[in-house]
Amino acid sequence: MSRIEELVKLLSRLPGIGSKSASRIAYHLIAGDEAYNKALGESICQIKERIHFCPTCGAYAEDDECEYCSDPRRDQSLLCVVEQPQDVVTIASSGSYQGLFHVLGGAIDPMEGIGPEQLSLAQLKHRVEEGSFKEVVIATNPTEEGDTTALYIRQLLKPYGLSLTRLASGLPIGGDLEYADRLTLARSIRGRVSF
Amino acid sequence: MSRIEELVKLLSRLPGIGSKSASRIAYHLIAGDEAYNKALGESICQIKERIHFCPTCGAYAEDDECEYCSDPRRDQSLLCVVEQPQDVVTIASSGSYQGLFHVLGGAIDPMEGIGPEQLSLAQLKHRVEEGSFKEVVIATNPTEEGDTTALYIRQLLKPYGLSLTRLASGLPIGGDLEYADRLTLARSIRGRVSF
Repeated sequence: MSRIEELVKLLSRLPGIGSKSASRIAYHLIAGDEAYNKALGESICQIKERIHFCPTCGAYAEDDECEYCSDPRRDQSLLCVVEQPQDVVTIASSGSYQGLFHVLGGAIDPMEGIGPEQLSLAQLKHRVEEGSFKEVVIATNPTEEGDTTALYIRQLLKPYGLSLTRLASGLPIGGDLEYADRLTLARSIRGRVSF
Repeated sequence: MSRIEELVKLLSRLPGIGSKSASRIAYHLIAGDEAYNKALGESICQIKERIHFCPTCGAYAEDDECEYCSDPRRDQSLLCVVEQPQDVVTIASSGSYQGLFHVLGGAIDPMEGIGPEQLSLAQLKHRVEEGSFKEVVIATNPTEEGDTTALYIRQLLKPYGLSLTRLASGLPIGGDLEYADRLTLARSIRGRVSF
């Protein structure tokens, strides 16, 4: 296999990149700027070493704690529970949420063998017990698994007497949080309803 | 700018990759296999060093000569003239062409300041003079610039009394050779017409 074929094959394993797109990208890289190729290549090589999970909330972090947990200006009385680390970035960049985060690491999915014990629910309970949260916003995906997980969290946190909310509809049902546009997401954060 | 934002920004400079696709790819890389990331990153870093242009025909090459020029089984009486190095791969992989190649490095485009002297037309003339070609297939893109270039080549090579052909219609007009599907391309190679 030639170097070009090898690169095309590697590129076509990326999500959303077919073999034609992979070829186009490979030729673009061959014809393009060497400094850019080095920057991109090194960034891809190093990204897993440079990024780890925040020990407090489970979001992506470059330092010990993530930028949200270590920022005292964020609202310490508000906690947003999401499925995946990238959901933290999506919600933070909507500009409509100023609280803290908690990443579950997935959603309850019995078909895939993912039960509550595979998610960071014990840590969530612990944070609610130790912290000073007044409201927990459940921002799991609007899918069957996300809804099941939201119901489970409602049961789990009910004894603590804090306000439990869920992102408002406006998110397309069956969709994925990662793909929501910012306006839709901002509206569903502002219009979150008691759960 | 965080490492993730940096990677997303670099990825979104690739052709056909918007900011949402770039984010998705970045998260895929963070969550994915480290060995794959290293292989992809190093392949991107090194691709420009590993690939050069064949001194004979101008196609991408890893050794001194490209795989087509150095293959004695290819039909030495047939020469296919294309605009870009990637067109060589496209035509070779159609399976309908077994001859040699010549890469022009573009097409005549006065609006962009590209005249015949910017293309490897002198080398083409030299190869035709020195070689034993019976037919030259002009496979420039079916665009205005490609057609202009084809007409120029017809004038240039007329004195040598060899058969001059042009890829048959079947390629969508105004399109780009790189995007043609294999069947369309194979048909246009088989149905090439006297020019």
